[in-house]
Amino acid sequence: MARRLTVAAAQLGPIQKAEGRDVAVGRMVRLMERAHQRGVEVVVFPELALTTFFPRWYEEDRAAADNWFEAALPSNETAPLFEAARKYGIAFHLGYAEKTPEGRHFNTAVFVHPSGEIVLKYRKVHLPGHAEYDPVRKVQHLEKRYFEVGDLGFPVVRAPVGGAGPVNVGMLICNDRRWPEAWRVLGLQSVELVMLGYNTPSLNMDNRGFEAHHLRVLHSHLSIQAGCYQNATFGVAAAKAGVEDGHELFGHSIIVNPQGEIMAQATSWDDELITADCDLEMCRLGRETIFNFAAHRRVEAYARITAQTGAQPPAEWQPRGA
Amino acid sequence: MARRLTVAAAQLGPIQKAEGRDVAVGRMVRLMERAHQRGVEVVVFPELALTTFFPRWYEEDRAAADNWFEAALPSNETAPLFEAARKYGIAFHLGYAEKTPEGRHFNTAVFVHPSGEIVLKYRKVHLPGHAEYDPVRKVQHLEKRYFEVGDLGFPVVRAPVGGAGPVNVGMLICNDRRWPEAWRVLGLQSVELVMLGYNTPSLNMDNRGFEAHHLRVLHSHLSIQAGCYQNATFGVAAAKAGVEDGHELFGHSIIVNPQGEIMAQATSWDDELITADCDLEMCRLGRETIFNFAAHRRVEAYARITAQTGAQPPAEWQPRGA
Repeated sequence: MARRLTVAAAQLGPIQKAEGRDVAVGRMVRLMERAHQRGVEVVVFPELALTTFFPRWYEEDRAAADNWFEAALPSNETAPLFEAARKYGIAFHLGYAEKTPEGRHFNTAVFVHPSGEIVLKYRKVHLPGHAEYDPVRKVQHLEKRYFEVGDLGFPVVRAPVGGAGPVNVGMLICNDRRWPEAWRVLGLQSVELVMLGYNTPSLNMDNRGFEAHHLRVLHSHLSIQAGCYQNATFGVAAAKAGVEDGHELFGHSIIVNPQGEIMAQATSWDDELITADCDLEMCRLGRETIFNFAAHRRVEAYARITAQTGAQPPAEWQPRGA
Repeated sequence: MARRLTVAAAQLGPIQKAEGRDVAVGRMVRLMERAHQRGVEVVVFPELALTTFFPRWYEEDRAAADNWFEAALPSNETAPLFEAARKYGIAFHLGYAEKTPEGRHFNTAVFVHPSGEIVLKYRKVHLPGHAEYDPVRKVQHLEKRYFEVGDLGFPVVRAPVGGAGPVNVGMLICNDRRWPEAWRVLGLQSVELVMLGYNTPSLNMDNRGFEAHHLRVLHSHLSIQAGCYQNATFGVAAAKAGVEDGHELFGHSIIVNPQGEIMAQATSWDDELITADCDLEMCRLGRETIFNFAAHRRVEAYARITAQTGAQPPAEWQPRGA
């Protein structure tokens, strides 16, 4: 029997530095309306969806970046989003910059029940970029400056979502999607739906050569499709897209099934809703056959993955004749 | 400065059950000649390259399958391959069924220096299939019956290969390629060239539904491309292809670069040599930027990967109102 869940990735066009949260929230509410018209039960918004992707801007004084962070959710400015969710009975995933009551900073996502209650919170583990101003880069990428590494692990929870009954949901944020470890920790908790938001530049700003710009969408899709296939899960990946503060983000939001197939793809650089009907029963094939972890994983051969952080040089071969 | 290594995947067409090892070795020697003409320095042959893919045949008495295994390498039958390697100065990778002096059985690959000396041996860790006769399956897949799980881990060694100077080489076998853990353990040892052979049916014989046959090449390529990209390594994946014992193997051998791009692809179902010039310096970009493991991996969040073999159910969400 099919367990059907209708999901959407709500891609956002650019949000300029000068624009307030009210502008972004207004656009998100319109996407939520559109989702309602399309029969959607879960909407996924991008990473840091309320503002421009501010880690491209260097502030010598970190506290000067605090205006990009949310101290409370919902706030006056984000309340309309929660109201729309309640009105339409739609659950949603939202990425935002979180400032805790203790003054800690995280790149965070929440999954919100239509009732407005937060079902699950995740704080980004794989922060890319750097902490200090990098004169080599054409554009800064200061996530390691503005955020702490997430301290919640990669949680999965079984929650009633839409008409499909309980669904095992988990989250990743942006660069996490390139790390198979992150997907696997979710897979080991039987995840069925991975929600992820991202802000990824079309051009590699690292300026150290080799990586062709035209491969960046390939890398994003490759990582998401492999992560979904290898963990037998659906994935909904929602991008910020278009020219933001003069810098292009590549968009190409996708919805992927447990066979690694792309079910829907955004093709604009603007606000765009893509949707798919997901039969959650489809997660079972992989789990029960080729990716039956209990039958096939060999943890004794994986020790380096948790014992060792960086790469080490291999042993040198010693020929008998030497 | 480029470090150029010219590599080949030597795909093999089918080897029928009745054919002796001499037939396969003769074909491999001809591929080695062809590799010499094409300026190749490393040739990768498939998994279990000397015989038909015998795990499709059930033997109630396991010992009756011993004729598929090699007790020594080189043997009289495989010596011509070693001679060709010496004559042409080509290193090669060979998959075969290994029976040890102690009577243990492994699905094994060796990487052989042109001198004939074995540089590295690997025994397959991720054995797919099942150990007992499965009446549900259209075709048996008895790797878990005929082989023990590999006991050598995922070794990488730095060895002088071709004109490029020392290269960090590692190996995977067939189903291993679908497991990101295997790739990562190689990546954590700075692998630059992953050699892998496979025998993969075009049709899913598991007969439990959902997996469309046309996705099987996608899954293979997706796993290899993601593994190469996420570990900044070249990959050479050599298939057995075509109709073997009445059952089709999909071929589609590929050579992949550290950006996850396919550099060469076999398009026949027969013996076929595909080649590529690999600039090993290309491995550095990933290693030094987005996949700089020391800078970005967060092993404290990966504990489940080694602590837990099978998938567990997630926690149930408890709404406040409940």
